[in-house]
Amino acid sequence: MSRRAAMQMSRFLVRPTRQRLFSTNISKIVVSSNNASNISGPRFTNSGILEVRYWSSIAGEEKQMQAPKLENSGNENATDQGGNAVVSSYWGVAPPKISKEDGSPWRWNCFRPWETYKADTSIDVKKHHEANAFMDKFAYWTVQTLKYPTYLFFQRRHMCHAMLLETVAAVPGMVGGMLLHLKSLRRFEHTGGWIKALLEEAENERMHLMTFLELSQPKWYERALVFAVQGVFFNAYFIAYVISPKLAHRIVGYLEEEAVNSYTEFLIDLENGVVENKPAPAIAIDYWRLPPDSTLKDVVTVIRADEAHHRDLNHFASDIQCQGHELKEYPAPLGYH
Amino acid sequence: MSRRAAMQMSRFLVRPTRQRLFSTNISKIVVSSNNASNISGPRFTNSGILEVRYWSSIAGEEKQMQAPKLENSGNENATDQGGNAVVSSYWGVAPPKISKEDGSPWRWNCFRPWETYKADTSIDVKKHHEANAFMDKFAYWTVQTLKYPTYLFFQRRHMCHAMLLETVAAVPGMVGGMLLHLKSLRRFEHTGGWIKALLEEAENERMHLMTFLELSQPKWYERALVFAVQGVFFNAYFIAYVISPKLAHRIVGYLEEEAVNSYTEFLIDLENGVVENKPAPAIAIDYWRLPPDSTLKDVVTVIRADEAHHRDLNHFASDIQCQGHELKEYPAPLGYH
Repeated sequence: MSRRAAMQMSRFLVRPTRQRLFSTNISKIVVSSNNASNISGPRFTNSGILEVRYWSSIAGEEKQMQAPKLENSGNENATDQGGNAVVSSYWGVAPPKISKEDGSPWRWNCFRPWETYKADTSIDVKKHHEANAFMDKFAYWTVQTLKYPTYLFFQRRHMCHAMLLETVAAVPGMVGGMLLHLKSLRRFEHTGGWIKALLEEAENERMHLMTFLELSQPKWYERALVFAVQGVFFNAYFIAYVISPKLAHRIVGYLEEEAVNSYTEFLIDLENGVVENKPAPAIAIDYWRLPPDSTLKDVVTVIRADEAHHRDLNHFASDIQCQGHELKEYPAPLGYH
Repeated sequence: MSRRAAMQMSRFLVRPTRQRLFSTNISKIVVSSNNASNISGPRFTNSGILEVRYWSSIAGEEKQMQAPKLENSGNENATDQGGNAVVSSYWGVAPPKISKEDGSPWRWNCFRPWETYKADTSIDVKKHHEANAFMDKFAYWTVQTLKYPTYLFFQRRHMCHAMLLETVAAVPGMVGGMLLHLKSLRRFEHTGGWIKALLEEAENERMHLMTFLELSQPKWYERALVFAVQGVFFNAYFIAYVISPKLAHRIVGYLEEEAVNSYTEFLIDLENGVVENKPAPAIAIDYWRLPPDSTLKDVVTVIRADEAHHRDLNHFASDIQCQGHELKEYPAPLGYH
């Protein structure tokens, strides 16, 4: 086989494997038509480009393929022409129609108008929890140890740094919320709203990621890294939370302190013009109720405020337990993003 | 050792073990004073009764111990008299003050006024998904197989049946929501609101449990059963969802069909006077916006409507995937409890 043929074949084999494993979005996208019924999965065009479903990768808009209607809408006892019962589909469950205050349709599926908020950017971003107890020092130095390879890898590539770290930051809230949920069920007890507080934190971090996605796309090796890190971090945090929730919360508190510092560096480079201060994407304007002419700087400012709130929430949760109490005794600060 | 002494000793040893393992609520509760600073954990009074923290076990109210203030409120750089830095605590994070429409304070931490709703009780409770495909039949017969031992164990003990099954029903939504959340992070893609829809389902089921808890308390062996079942079911459903989300959703759809049937039986016995039709607890009146003079029958009616909605949601999610699409292509029916 000639070298050229071998390279073409490897490209044919490797690229779809990479994509199927990591994502359905690729850096070179051929936008398919709105008639999605012709597309049931990724396929190659004649020029060899992989055509995939087009999702949200254009700044300012969440595009959704106009999905074909499912067969046999709403009638589970219908029969086909042969008299055979047809599998039910589309059980008449439609999302509610929501519009903005000005009457235009609400564009987003993952958050609704009443879940938007104005971030409190006056929050103290320099706050630090003094690590005196052994457990606090352990948590602090765990985070410090992980910080240096991270900075070495990303350096001043702030967008990439932020995007990949949000994939990690969105895990603890979900794990903690889930474990508290299971505990509430098997112990038949209330939780003081902490399940919701932690799930809100996780969703808020995921919204940071969705925002950055409108401004930048990860490369395939960054996706591979995220894949690997998630596998390790999810399990490690799960085990840590089961063994010692106060240690887990303390670690997250320190992680959030580092996140705040990273965003401060990002803001410095934006102010100095080292990073281009692009217009804010629509998803950010709607989610944080920003003015329409907002820029990336405003977005990073509100995201940093969110991280500072998460820092407070997690250090608070750890403090409660360090002092021998349970979370349920202290109502969770819900809505405190 | 005399037989009497041995029995007293076993009671001394067995009861705290049971409680510490399964719950902090016991059937015989000595209500401690509001000054919680004297209580750091369960302790025995002179008469040998185990005194524990008092949580929510009186119908109509969520009681919360007046928790003592944490040390060193808000000042992480404070020092003690010896000049040593004191561990920070209570980072100034307080829950928002919320009141009802009539101005009275909002009593609940786990849900807020804008999360309450009027259930749609006109929903069809007789709907059934015809199992034609092999996967559907597998799901259907899995549920049918589990149904018979369940009915044998509970028989007409509806309250007990409902309470224990809600501890199971609240698991799938959380597992599914979490797995979709992780998938969204590592694939850098939107989800169409399905994470939120599934987490809402899980929280809704947990609210059913919290409601029943105001009317009945599980016995220690029922708590042990819940403990064991949760361990098995959580892991089994997690694996099922990873391998085949459409099968997992189909199973839950059929489980919810059985839940609807169980609640129909409950209503029949309430109407016939076999089960006492008690007043509805306050948590139910606030959560479902029921009239103040509502009874258990109204509560079971709205809970059954919720289960019917979950049935629709899960069968819909399965149908989407059975027809070769992904959940994200179809906006989730959020707010569809």
